[in-house]
Amino acid sequence: MPLAYLYRAPDLTDYMIRFFRKLGVSEAHASTAAEILISADLRGVSSHGIIRLHSYYGSRILKGLIDPASPFTTVRETPATLLIDGGNGLGMVVGYHAMQVAIEKAHHNGAALVNVRNSNHYGIAGYYAMMALPHDMIGISFTNAQPLVAPTYGRTRIIGTNPIAVAAPALHERPYVLDMATSIVPIGKITVYDKAGEEIPEGWGVDKSGAVTTKPSDVLQGGALLPLGGSDIMRGYKGYGLGLMVDIFSGVLSGAAFGPEVGAPGREQAANVGHFFAAVNIAAFRDPQEFRSDLDQLIHTLKEAPKAVGHERIYIHGEKEFELYERNMREGVPLLAEVVKGLREAGEQIGVPFDLQMVGETMGEEE
Amino acid sequence: MPLAYLYRAPDLTDYMIRFFRKLGVSEAHASTAAEILISADLRGVSSHGIIRLHSYYGSRILKGLIDPASPFTTVRETPATLLIDGGNGLGMVVGYHAMQVAIEKAHHNGAALVNVRNSNHYGIAGYYAMMALPHDMIGISFTNAQPLVAPTYGRTRIIGTNPIAVAAPALHERPYVLDMATSIVPIGKITVYDKAGEEIPEGWGVDKSGAVTTKPSDVLQGGALLPLGGSDIMRGYKGYGLGLMVDIFSGVLSGAAFGPEVGAPGREQAANVGHFFAAVNIAAFRDPQEFRSDLDQLIHTLKEAPKAVGHERIYIHGEKEFELYERNMREGVPLLAEVVKGLREAGEQIGVPFDLQMVGETMGEEE
Repeated sequence: MPLAYLYRAPDLTDYMIRFFRKLGVSEAHASTAAEILISADLRGVSSHGIIRLHSYYGSRILKGLIDPASPFTTVRETPATLLIDGGNGLGMVVGYHAMQVAIEKAHHNGAALVNVRNSNHYGIAGYYAMMALPHDMIGISFTNAQPLVAPTYGRTRIIGTNPIAVAAPALHERPYVLDMATSIVPIGKITVYDKAGEEIPEGWGVDKSGAVTTKPSDVLQGGALLPLGGSDIMRGYKGYGLGLMVDIFSGVLSGAAFGPEVGAPGREQAANVGHFFAAVNIAAFRDPQEFRSDLDQLIHTLKEAPKAVGHERIYIHGEKEFELYERNMREGVPLLAEVVKGLREAGEQIGVPFDLQMVGETMGEEE
Repeated sequence: MPLAYLYRAPDLTDYMIRFFRKLGVSEAHASTAAEILISADLRGVSSHGIIRLHSYYGSRILKGLIDPASPFTTVRETPATLLIDGGNGLGMVVGYHAMQVAIEKAHHNGAALVNVRNSNHYGIAGYYAMMALPHDMIGISFTNAQPLVAPTYGRTRIIGTNPIAVAAPALHERPYVLDMATSIVPIGKITVYDKAGEEIPEGWGVDKSGAVTTKPSDVLQGGALLPLGGSDIMRGYKGYGLGLMVDIFSGVLSGAAFGPEVGAPGREQAANVGHFFAAVNIAAFRDPQEFRSDLDQLIHTLKEAPKAVGHERIYIHGEKEFELYERNMREGVPLLAEVVKGLREAGEQIGVPFDLQMVGETMGEEE
């Protein structure tokens, strides 16, 4: 495990706001974007946090590939739906707005779906789904993403790791927060194994011929990730089908790019990412307290169920992330030495020096 | 491959209508239920078709465990949502009604969600999702089901195989129709391997200690199915999370049973199954012709993509089922000899003899 430095979350948030402000992002938008990015770091999903500040956002604003004004506009509206054009702005800014509108509309109509086209990488999908929780609503968010996953029986990268996020409130228990890529693992996981010189488990990815490989370099150089399920015999076509569903809702329904046309953060053109958001007002179906109490009961049933030999705990989705959140708020957010180095370099380039005081050191974990 | 007899689909449908009529189901309800069951046989999902006529439906009506009047009622309604109490009637009857209402409400409000509690097994989830297609809508359906799946790190059956179905219309191509259990395989698949004396692939299920096993009998006797993904290292907790999501939408949100409380067709009590339906009106977001044309393009991209070595075709979800539908409409629906025997016995018991003329023989395939 490599060395990591600990920084206070509010310091990192403040830094990101200053970084975005320097690039022409408004105070309100910069705050929103920073809050969503730090939530990833706090929840232990560091691949979607401050590490991307420059590569996914800052460098693309500088190159004119993202509009820092995030001039999103309403395209089409009905009582329970809305289509927004993201104006090629920051995905976090339009995503936050879209989910707010979904919640507002669900208050009046029981449920609402909001679709976004012409956007960019929006950070962690789970953040938007969780926005519904304080409103006694179930939240949903999908987004398409750069192509990395091969369809079953294919060998090239056509579908993104297209995540599905769903959040539902419990009563005394923590909420259920599913936030999953529809591939088995993200591409960054393959890179970690490659750097460590280790083999990947059979089924995570294929080489350029479409054969399952245990060599991470085979996946990285001309290969592809496999969808959840993996091989045919383990029903990988279900994960492929879920990735396709996310692309239909995020890309095809909104009029954004889809399939291999979705822009990658490293590609020199507007990404035209599509997002999908939904809010379901629990009160439209039943008393929210009863819902929360029943979800508590389901959670208890799962957690108290007999464990497989060798295991001591059954988890509910989101539980590990809530525990990391609490630890990272208390002890600081761990940033690997190479991430800090990247932030220093970017800060120098932008003119917002990354000169925060670290509060400790730790052995950083990989996701 | 065992011997199967071929019967004309209209003959089987007519038989099922007479069967349901004899049990006190109205003509309209009997037609709906029969149409949904035969659609499973036609699409090659025979585990959800006529094979269940007596075990899931007829025998339970006879025992007073399903109300043949299917007296469903509206519980709560908003512009974009509806909660229905199924009156412990046939799942197909209330499911059909619920999806019709979802479509109707989506015409006016852009989208609609309909939840059902106090219901029974509703056949194939995909049927309801596909009802949206002629209306230029995307259809969604979930249902919870009897507990068969262990959560990650668990060893007992807590979650159902809780399916996710999503259908979206294309232009010249066949629609996308995802209809997937959130377990890797259904329990019937394990039984097939057990009867054949074959080992199951590693990861499909666990024994009573929670260890992955290749012996089908270990899964059947005190073990459990594993969720999509399978083991921890292959991210089985994502499949577990999807199964839980379906239970939250179908059971917890509707006020139906959930988790291990969902009734099994063989259990001597009302099942209190919950279903979830949604219709998304494409016109609320963009021109439906443009949507259909873009979905065609995504389908072409997938189908024309380079194939993995050893494979000649990339499939779109639902494609195999459409091909089976066409073959079975043309050549007849294959029923295994033992299924025909079961229908004869049930027909005799009910007083509606299964005396249909077979139109041929074939070597039946297992699903």
